[in-house]
Amino acid sequence: MKLSARNQLPGKVTKIETGMVTAEVVIELDGGGELIAVITKKSVENLGIAVGKKVYAVVKSTEVMVAID
Amino acid sequence: MKLSARNQLPGKVTKIETGMVTAEVVIELDGGGELIAVITKKSVENLGIAVGKKVYAVVKSTEVMVAID
Amino acid sequence: MKLSARNQLPGKVTKIETGMVTAEVVIELDGGGELIAVITKKSVENLGIAVGKKVYAVVKSTEVMVAID
Amino acid sequence: MKLSARNQLPGKVTKIETGMVTAEVVIELDGGGELIAVITKKSVENLGIAVGKKVYAVVKSTEVMVAID
Amino acid sequence: MKLSARNQLPGKVTKIETGMVTAEVVIELDGGGELIAVITKKSVENLGIAVGKKVYAVVKSTEVMVAID
Amino acid sequence: MKLSARNQLPGKVTKIETGMVTAEVVIELDGGGELIAVITKKSVENLGIAVGKKVYAVVKSTEVMVAID
Repeated sequence: MKLSARNQLPGKVTKIETGMVTAEVVIELDGGGELIAVITKKSVENLGIAVGKKVYAVVKSTEVMVAID
Repeated sequence: MKLSARNQLPGKVTKIETGMVTAEVVIELDGGGELIAVITKKSVENLGIAVGKKVYAVVKSTEVMVAID
Repeated sequence: MKLSARNQLPGKVTKIETGMVTAEVVIELDGGGELIAVITKKSVENLGIAVGKKVYAVVKSTEVMVAID
Repeated sequence: MKLSARNQLPGKVTKIETGMVTAEVVIELDGGGELIAVITKKSVENLGIAVGKKVYAVVKSTEVMVAID
Repeated sequence: MKLSARNQLPGKVTKIETGMVTAEVVIELDGGGELIAVITKKSVENLGIAVGKKVYAVVKSTEVMVAID
Repeated sequence: MKLSARNQLPGKVTKIETGMVTAEVVIELDGGGELIAVITKKSVENLGIAVGKKVYAVVKSTEVMVAID
């Protein structure tokens, strides 16, 4: 599957915090820095997301903001 | 200002495509890889965003998805 | 690629309206009804999205609201 | 109330998973297929959303992505 | 129609900037302050949104961030 | 930090409901009315958000919808 969302950064899962409906997944990006994703607990299970797993952090461009110092 | 959005990645603007309402800003992340932001043309003007400028790409965690190969 | 976004509905593109930065893509769902996506013009080009093409409308669950009459 | 969000698909609630803050609502679309919404637990209560209830899944167009095989 | 999105602030449209696909609508809130919405040009037409019109700015709770000084 | 998100309304926190991953923060706007934000529990801790605290509700313009009666 190819997706219109153009932001797809490779990384590795370093931490997962699971709630009753949602889960917080911390992704250490290959290039450095990290991205945090809040997705459903079901998606974590469906994709077999676990600490150490290689994943992509994916973001729709309309969801990205820009900040300056 | 400190913001609840926990994803704030430093980078540099490499390209801006401007429409009538929105603009597409390409940010080369310091760690490698790039993120594309679609924000309003007014925000580009208000913040003085220009090619070469140091910025942060900011994303709310609930907007980040996870993908696997 | 498998994506955490659990809403992936098959359909066919029936109309594309292109602006300078964004484009509006109308997708007739296989099950009936339609979904409209606003994505970047670049994504339309990158994926070769055109009228008549089979696609999936993809939505992150946190972006779906519920309404009652 | 008429809403600018143009994606409003009729369906029926088939499952609700409730957490402490959010809830996951599974909507079987009238046309087939399903959409999953993550909304607040309070909204589930406010609208009296329950299994079997007729609802609409509502999505802002800027939140819809497009994927191809 | 009653919507799960719990943020519905009454106001009046004070400015509309129209592009080819999207439009920017400035809403002066009844309580003071303003909110800017980027919606599709079609939605502006469908709802007959015009300067001076009474509207509601509607936001899903998962889209609201919090900042401190 | 200056942010591209143009909607930044001042207010005061009146209630916080905390789950395992997310938290719901009710903000009474200075101008009247309230906005509800669902952010991560970690962000509530990181920013020291508490009842009575002065904050800003921040929303990206592409996340704001418009409704009419």
